[in-house]
Amino acid sequence: MFVVMATGASEAEVLGVKSRILAEGLTPFDHQDVDHVVIAVVGEMGGRKPALLESFAVLPGVERVTPINRPFKLTSREFHPEDTVIRVLDAAIGDGSLTVMAGPCSVENRDQLFETADAVAAAGATVLRGGAFKPRTSPYAFQGLGVEGLKMLAEIREEFDLNIVTEAMDEAGVDAVEKYGDCIQIGARNMQNFSLLKYVGQAEKPVLLKRGMSATLDEFLLAAEYIMAEGNYNVILCERGIRTFATHARNTLDLSIVPAVRRLSFKIVSMNVTTPLG
Amino acid sequence: MFVVMATGASEAEVLGVKSRILAEGLTPFDHQDVDHVVIAVVGEMGGRKPALLESFAVLPGVERVTPINRPFKLTSREFHPEDTVIRVLDAAIGDGSLTVMAGPCSVENRDQLFETADAVAAAGATVLRGGAFKPRTSPYAFQGLGVEGLKMLAEIREEFDLNIVTEAMDEAGVDAVEKYGDCIQIGARNMQNFSLLKYVGQAEKPVLLKRGMSATLDEFLLAAEYIMAEGNYNVILCERGIRTFATHARNTLDLSIVPAVRRLSFKIVSMNVTTPLG
Amino acid sequence: MFVVMATGASEAEVLGVKSRILAEGLTPFDHQDVDHVVIAVVGEMGGRKPALLESFAVLPGVERVTPINRPFKLTSREFHPEDTVIRVLDAAIGDGSLTVMAGPCSVENRDQLFETADAVAAAGATVLRGGAFKPRTSPYAFQGLGVEGLKMLAEIREEFDLNIVTEAMDEAGVDAVEKYGDCIQIGARNMQNFSLLKYVGQAEKPVLLKRGMSATLDEFLLAAEYIMAEGNYNVILCERGIRTFATHARNTLDLSIVPAVRRLSFKIVSMNVTTPLG
Amino acid sequence: MFVVMATGASEAEVLGVKSRILAEGLTPFDHQDVDHVVIAVVGEMGGRKPALLESFAVLPGVERVTPINRPFKLTSREFHPEDTVIRVLDAAIGDGSLTVMAGPCSVENRDQLFETADAVAAAGATVLRGGAFKPRTSPYAFQGLGVEGLKMLAEIREEFDLNIVTEAMDEAGVDAVEKYGDCIQIGARNMQNFSLLKYVGQAEKPVLLKRGMSATLDEFLLAAEYIMAEGNYNVILCERGIRTFATHARNTLDLSIVPAVRRLSFKIVSMNVTTPLG
Repeated sequence: MFVVMATGASEAEVLGVKSRILAEGLTPFDHQDVDHVVIAVVGEMGGRKPALLESFAVLPGVERVTPINRPFKLTSREFHPEDTVIRVLDAAIGDGSLTVMAGPCSVENRDQLFETADAVAAAGATVLRGGAFKPRTSPYAFQGLGVEGLKMLAEIREEFDLNIVTEAMDEAGVDAVEKYGDCIQIGARNMQNFSLLKYVGQAEKPVLLKRGMSATLDEFLLAAEYIMAEGNYNVILCERGIRTFATHARNTLDLSIVPAVRRLSFKIVSMNVTTPLG
Repeated sequence: MFVVMATGASEAEVLGVKSRILAEGLTPFDHQDVDHVVIAVVGEMGGRKPALLESFAVLPGVERVTPINRPFKLTSREFHPEDTVIRVLDAAIGDGSLTVMAGPCSVENRDQLFETADAVAAAGATVLRGGAFKPRTSPYAFQGLGVEGLKMLAEIREEFDLNIVTEAMDEAGVDAVEKYGDCIQIGARNMQNFSLLKYVGQAEKPVLLKRGMSATLDEFLLAAEYIMAEGNYNVILCERGIRTFATHARNTLDLSIVPAVRRLSFKIVSMNVTTPLG
Repeated sequence: MFVVMATGASEAEVLGVKSRILAEGLTPFDHQDVDHVVIAVVGEMGGRKPALLESFAVLPGVERVTPINRPFKLTSREFHPEDTVIRVLDAAIGDGSLTVMAGPCSVENRDQLFETADAVAAAGATVLRGGAFKPRTSPYAFQGLGVEGLKMLAEIREEFDLNIVTEAMDEAGVDAVEKYGDCIQIGARNMQNFSLLKYVGQAEKPVLLKRGMSATLDEFLLAAEYIMAEGNYNVILCERGIRTFATHARNTLDLSIVPAVRRLSFKIVSMNVTTPLG
Repeated sequence: MFVVMATGASEAEVLGVKSRILAEGLTPFDHQDVDHVVIAVVGEMGGRKPALLESFAVLPGVERVTPINRPFKLTSREFHPEDTVIRVLDAAIGDGSLTVMAGPCSVENRDQLFETADAVAAAGATVLRGGAFKPRTSPYAFQGLGVEGLKMLAEIREEFDLNIVTEAMDEAGVDAVEKYGDCIQIGARNMQNFSLLKYVGQAEKPVLLKRGMSATLDEFLLAAEYIMAEGNYNVILCERGIRTFATHARNTLDLSIVPAVRRLSFKIVSMNVTTPLG
């Protein structure tokens, strides 16, 4: 359920509500909306739910309590009514402006990277994307330059004033991207790697979460919920196309998920443009 | 294969090539492009293909002969290099302008139809769409007003100066839509009803062909090819969304088929906007 | 709703119930189950439903009346509790025995057909399948021998004592298959060609209905419902594989639809074995 | 490419070939087939391929060298022509006998686990499956008992003589399952978690690899290849159903992948029976 505090509720009142939630064995997550604090209450309530709802509703400073029937809580519009703006260093994503994130699939060498960075910066991109750790279908394909690639990406930030988004595939990778990059990308193949989601939920940097190849809307939002439930609220959703019977493009871009997400959730949707097959 | 006539080839030369094609037991389809006549040669050639190619290449007025390796011939860019413009009465579809086709799912009664027509005309639509014959999943659902509905649609054309596109589900329906409407719609469920495709291929009116729920790009173009091979070259392709695992919208709009069709084929792609599920 | 007559209800009582249904502007469909007559009531009831239910319940000979909440009525288990056995001449399909239907994709010539028939009869098949009318993706592919092919199939019946199932793609085709064959096949591409479904619903011969490439369970049963609502109760459902992202087989055989159909519906499910791709 | 050693080739000859492969900067993987040693050569060969093929072919003890055109090497039939038998303690999987692996979705408590184990052992199962680490779509759902659950599973092995297969979701989980279980399950959501695949490739215990929800045949085999390329050849493939538009079952069991895998690869395919939706 969501406890919506009254406009002007004091910090002490917010704290009082959170203490009471904890005392019931539940977990409070709070968010300062434009003029309200909203507290999401998460945990096993079972039959106690109506009673809890009533008991929270009469606490000092509470405006109203509303039940949540959807499985996603922190990602829902009710928790966070206004649109979110996420900052990847200088770039503000979700404020209505268009952020272009561009770059090579993988960082191959210094020359390729610097030439590409030069070109995309000239073309108006403010974020460079490029993989140092690459999830390859075959174990024999090039797996990326690893930390060497990340160091090159960090140079790019200095040289071209581009923010860096790059993929992490495991905990060591998350630590490395936190050190050298600005935004941690979780790839489609890892969208339901729940251990990894929890780990980036504890990271300081924002997370770009790509939709899994066959992820439903609910699964996509709940993957974001995994990250947020660990404390990292800075999640950017990325529609990158789904797997269908169609073969004329590598993936089928599912444009209609954008309004669907916006209705249910405050999350931002960026889009991965897939190159049509040669 | 395609026989491309030289610019300025005479009618007699074109006729000569077509006669020769017929004499080989094959079928010629010709198309006047901006400054060339292109003749598509269709039929079983087997091992004769290289010899035929050479023998056609030396006929008077022939510029060059090119083999076709794709299964679609009349729908291919090679046959018809420039973009196509199809006229549904006053509306020119494919000339770079935006044509809005709007209207109710089905014609339910006179009042509903006239009110809707008034609204869509005011909003800038030049084509009204609305079903008199409705393909319903259940036999017990409303199946449309039939010819009565078509007559109402014909009144709309007079009253509001809107062109009428409406679905036909069988031969009798095609005849009726030819009489009362301006453009014959073939629905997604009938995209591979080959008997119906052949029948509308003999109709005078243009055809709006909706993509089947699980049709590949090739199947879609070959459905158009069925219509064109009967002589009706006025086919408008309509992407209306495909069936996938995703449930947040009734269909998954497959936007990426538009550039794919445009590369392979001259056909126009209109789009069916699907309303997201409540 | 279903009106279940008492065991031993008289013909006059059944007729009385049917007259009353007709008098309400609704349509009765009746079925003699092992020891009951069940009458399905179809039509627009709206808010009258509870009142109608009560008024039918008290008619002479009525045991009980049950509402139908599913969209399929004549195809539902409630209408026809026991399993169905459909006879294609000598072959009893659905009685627990295994019926093998085999044969060539299309009838190509007399020799090919007689050799194949000989082989499949020797191997234990009791039904020969083979196409005289072929739904081809391309208009330039062999479209079948038509009526000539049907005549050859009729010879096969005499010669080899095999029953004949063969596809019809339009009304003329249905008439021809009724004349020469024993069971009318409706192909996957025509599963929602509702005009054709209604037409075979008036045929005398049983219908083998193949599941559409992307048909849901409900759509499949409602396609059968279209046929049955016209009076032809002899429908055999055929799972032939669906279209998915998987490419290692031409279609993905969806075996789990068999128990799902059996639970909801009395219909028989035959299966189309798809040859894995070379 | 594969270097097939002659029957009776000496150990020194095998070693000679492997040294030569290493000297070329490539990696040899060898497998003792019934009467041959087969050595797979993996690595970047580029234009050198024909020359390498010839130079390996003339080494002492070599019978023949064959190129590999498919992306999967260690999982291919060519590397391992006979069927594989994998031992999970007492259970031999792949020897033609039927191994039943059964148990609860997740280990919930001691009573539930012991009762279930008792029942499945009585019913003929030789392997118990049950999750101690559970990949849940929602972060708020029960995530499993963790190591406590594994300890209970280890008790089951002693008490009921059942082998234990249980899922690991990350490196710590793999270590724990190695300690308490007999076979490490990699779930569908982690089928392309390449870091995890590499890690279980270094484990001692066999791996049960479940097919991803939208994995193609190639992706499935290459996921196994990731594990094998690290040295763990004991991989059991598990078809557990794919994601399609169909909703009458939780997943669409793709039975036809079994013969497709058996043709291309020696791997064993176990099957996950999905319960139809209530």
